[in-house]
Amino acid sequence: MAEPLHLRDRTLQIDRATRADLPQLVALLADDEIGRDREGAQLAAYERAFERIDADPAHLLVAVRDDDSVVGTMQLTLLPGLSRSATTRLQIEGVRVAASQRGSGLGAAMFAWAADWGRAHGAGLAQLTTDKRRGDAHRFYERLGWSATHEGYKRGL
Amino acid sequence: MAEPLHLRDRTLQIDRATRADLPQLVALLADDEIGRDREGAQLAAYERAFERIDADPAHLLVAVRDDDSVVGTMQLTLLPGLSRSATTRLQIEGVRVAASQRGSGLGAAMFAWAADWGRAHGAGLAQLTTDKRRGDAHRFYERLGWSATHEGYKRGL
Repeated sequence: MAEPLHLRDRTLQIDRATRADLPQLVALLADDEIGRDREGAQLAAYERAFERIDADPAHLLVAVRDDDSVVGTMQLTLLPGLSRSATTRLQIEGVRVAASQRGSGLGAAMFAWAADWGRAHGAGLAQLTTDKRRGDAHRFYERLGWSATHEGYKRGL
Repeated sequence: MAEPLHLRDRTLQIDRATRADLPQLVALLADDEIGRDREGAQLAAYERAFERIDADPAHLLVAVRDDDSVVGTMQLTLLPGLSRSATTRLQIEGVRVAASQRGSGLGAAMFAWAADWGRAHGAGLAQLTTDKRRGDAHRFYERLGWSATHEGYKRGL
């Protein structure tokens, strides 16, 4: 399903991630001030998660490629639901842009692509949570038209 | 799958919601200060959403019954993912407790049941968002051990 993803001054490819992308995807997840201490499982654990994501068409694990390098990722999930007059939600998790690409417009292009994908699959509302320590991310989302209307609660199980 | 749900002074039944529950589920969703203005779709739209939820074993739409009345609901979703060392998330949406039941311990019992269900299905982290205007809900979640570590961003599509 690779498609062009147009940035201001060049074109990358946006694609469904494959199992072969996993080492690069995990490296992207770990290349982050908050994410750094959270990654470190064996590759086999990431492979099992990948298989579960890939097996359910409600999910799309995205890899943005610059030639052979994966420079961006996010996981999109369609969440059907009764609330808000039976609105399907587009849940966005695990967004990362490679440090080398920051400021390139890649993040904004990925979110525009995600919104199109959600609309094409019947979603009426997109949602994500972001750590309260990520002030730069908050400004980015607000510039893209997102609103922090909700508190994001988490609890270990 | 109906199971007993023990409250302090009586026992309700917790069950997978059925299509026949839909009118009561929609009434519960609408019996809420914030939800009131958001519900009002035709029953057919709720039925289509119900079919999508019910068809995917990643979702469990819960109905808590007191005899023939549905007095509580929530939607549980298992979200596999790569981040946080390939942690599966338990996403909780559309939680409602009937006004007649508030203060009965039903909400806390539902969340304890949800955590057990999530753990039994391999989830390591539970997450939900709640409107910033719901101060009572925030105190409730914090009492149950949840932390508002994240901002919850939404955006219409």
